[in-house]
Amino acid sequence: MFRKLLTIEEAKTAIRRHFKSKPPGTEHVPLLQATGRILAEDIIAQVNVPPFDRSIVDGYAVRAEETFGAEETCPIQLELAGTINIGELPRVKVTKGKAAEIVTGAPIPQGADAVVMMEHTERTDDAIRIFAPVVKDQNIMKASSDIKEGQRLLTTCQQLGSREIGMIAAIGKPLVKTYRLPTVAVLSTGPEIAEPGKKLSPGKIYDINAYTLSSAVIEAGGRPLYLGVVQDSLQQLQKALRSALSQADMVITSGGVSVGPRDIMPTAVNTLGKPGVIVSGISIKPGKPTTIASVDGKLVFSFPGHPTSALLVLHLLALPLIQQLAGKKPRQPSQTKAYTTTRLFSAKGRRTYIMVTLKHDETGKRTAEPLPTSQSGAITTLAKADGYIEIPENMQYIEKNEQCTIRRFR
Amino acid sequence: MFRKLLTIEEAKTAIRRHFKSKPPGTEHVPLLQATGRILAEDIIAQVNVPPFDRSIVDGYAVRAEETFGAEETCPIQLELAGTINIGELPRVKVTKGKAAEIVTGAPIPQGADAVVMMEHTERTDDAIRIFAPVVKDQNIMKASSDIKEGQRLLTTCQQLGSREIGMIAAIGKPLVKTYRLPTVAVLSTGPEIAEPGKKLSPGKIYDINAYTLSSAVIEAGGRPLYLGVVQDSLQQLQKALRSALSQADMVITSGGVSVGPRDIMPTAVNTLGKPGVIVSGISIKPGKPTTIASVDGKLVFSFPGHPTSALLVLHLLALPLIQQLAGKKPRQPSQTKAYTTTRLFSAKGRRTYIMVTLKHDETGKRTAEPLPTSQSGAITTLAKADGYIEIPENMQYIEKNEQCTIRRFR
Repeated sequence: MFRKLLTIEEAKTAIRRHFKSKPPGTEHVPLLQATGRILAEDIIAQVNVPPFDRSIVDGYAVRAEETFGAEETCPIQLELAGTINIGELPRVKVTKGKAAEIVTGAPIPQGADAVVMMEHTERTDDAIRIFAPVVKDQNIMKASSDIKEGQRLLTTCQQLGSREIGMIAAIGKPLVKTYRLPTVAVLSTGPEIAEPGKKLSPGKIYDINAYTLSSAVIEAGGRPLYLGVVQDSLQQLQKALRSALSQADMVITSGGVSVGPRDIMPTAVNTLGKPGVIVSGISIKPGKPTTIASVDGKLVFSFPGHPTSALLVLHLLALPLIQQLAGKKPRQPSQTKAYTTTRLFSAKGRRTYIMVTLKHDETGKRTAEPLPTSQSGAITTLAKADGYIEIPENMQYIEKNEQCTIRRFR
Repeated sequence: MFRKLLTIEEAKTAIRRHFKSKPPGTEHVPLLQATGRILAEDIIAQVNVPPFDRSIVDGYAVRAEETFGAEETCPIQLELAGTINIGELPRVKVTKGKAAEIVTGAPIPQGADAVVMMEHTERTDDAIRIFAPVVKDQNIMKASSDIKEGQRLLTTCQQLGSREIGMIAAIGKPLVKTYRLPTVAVLSTGPEIAEPGKKLSPGKIYDINAYTLSSAVIEAGGRPLYLGVVQDSLQQLQKALRSALSQADMVITSGGVSVGPRDIMPTAVNTLGKPGVIVSGISIKPGKPTTIASVDGKLVFSFPGHPTSALLVLHLLALPLIQQLAGKKPRQPSQTKAYTTTRLFSAKGRRTYIMVTLKHDETGKRTAEPLPTSQSGAITTLAKADGYIEIPENMQYIEKNEQCTIRRFR
């Protein structure tokens, strides 16, 4: 077990060396349940859409050339050949001098090559008077004009929204192959942690992190598996981690990793598989006492117990991996610009992250107001944070009134 | 049944007159499943967080004044009073000349009023040497400093993200009262419509709208209830609508509402309850043949069969209502600016919506390229649309290269 603090970049390199963030598997999902899911297949049309020439108006299917010269004052008269039923093959043919009644969406009958809108016609018994000419293909949606058989409509890794779902429906595909949601086991450690809903005995506090982290996992496109609070015995921790690793694609714990008499997390993970601990402390503030282990290809993140530290390191290191496991394209967190309201000091030699609230000052200027860093244990502080400002290791402070980049939590 | 076309604003007024878009009900959801849900209660803390003074470092709990003057070269020596166990009431007291070993998160023992970090101490058997002074309350998170009993943490209608979930966990609340997801029944009408997954018989096409619309309902925070394809008989339609109204908070149908020989939707809804049809056609393009009925307090939207028309009218009229039913604060669709790549003509006298794809031209300028309006039946056209430009009734066209507002679909 080594104790050298890595930089955040070195920690990322160590993770990349030991972890392939490929989606853990695929599953077929009914199309109606696929909204928001990530495609694990290219969608290739097996049919033409539409499969036949369709009318896009209500009116009369005609031979276009027979309508040439038709005018409001000088209509052309055709004879009704019959009515096209929607949803079935036309049994009517349009021959010279004839027109067939048709509704929007019905197939164009043999012989016809255009449709005159109802509004430009007048009917008396079987006589149809046409008051405006149409050209070939007018008011017709041609077979395969929307989608051609063999056409690639969507590609692997696209996220399915309403319009993509509509395209898949159009080709009649009822099931869609998507990446399985990655399962992330979440557990809290520490004898002082109690589960919400239970009575709080003296000296204990309710578990915040398992809930914050589970919810953030959902927001990133993963499926959290809440495994509760593990007391700080080595045996209990090993048992809980073994169970977590058998059920999940990634494990996140928080608490119990400070440099203190009860720091048993590294010991526990090192007994479970190879290579064990790959990152033992990171040169950042907050979040320094973060341990990362790789156990036979799966990552175990052990975050500090302070809610702000835990959520920050989750954002910095784990969420991008969860998004990749979910099949999503890697994406930078959403960023914005604002002016600092005070000088922001860094922790000497450590990459420093300052939580900020975004506001507007009296002149309308967007400002980033720092939240007290000493309160990294406070959930209300974290709840007020819209995002964070990063200060490099070699910078002592960011001046007041300087424009900064804020990475947003949402 | 009246046939006068309403403007889009008149249609909205008619809806407001007949429909109270209050959330349909509430339900208690386990906190771990509440991510993304909308609060239906104010969250008031019933406990203090933390409930006791806690150490925020590993070290020794001391009486601050006894450390005054301690220096690296001139430490002050205290005697070990014992060790504070984390997660229980301290059994150790810190009296004059004493210090108690403590870890992060453990309760401050009686008599102590500060904690010296482990790094600033040295221990030999029971003698603790202190190399740096601390002031009163240093390294202590005071009881109720995060959350005070009686404090309002969150208010009704807030959406729950990871940080809000963390605050609710902090006060130990396992269930949270949220608005029930509004149920929106979705059905398609028309003898030509077939369900995806079934063999396509001649003259039929696969149902696109029920899928696009259901997915958009999910994106808006509702729960779609897919009721399949209803053939165009009055009896079948009445039966399907009656079933939809009994199960859902809103009903959306598409297809079968064109002005044609088979236009039975108004007849069907008028038999089901009062007042029946409130909007029969809207002066917009596309989307004109939209019918809206109010049936004993629930809305039935009947959209045109063309996918673009159906999704557009959903966005214009139904999605804001679904968001309100879900308990969300009314929100404008996300907007952006871009330059038109060509002159965009409106439909004379009708509010016109032009679907556009957002691109960047060779100079890097953001452009909005219109999609062919004649193709409102094409799902691939819709899938390419990033949003739409609105042209007012009294404007003939928008000039090429003009900067426009684009309302986004996502």
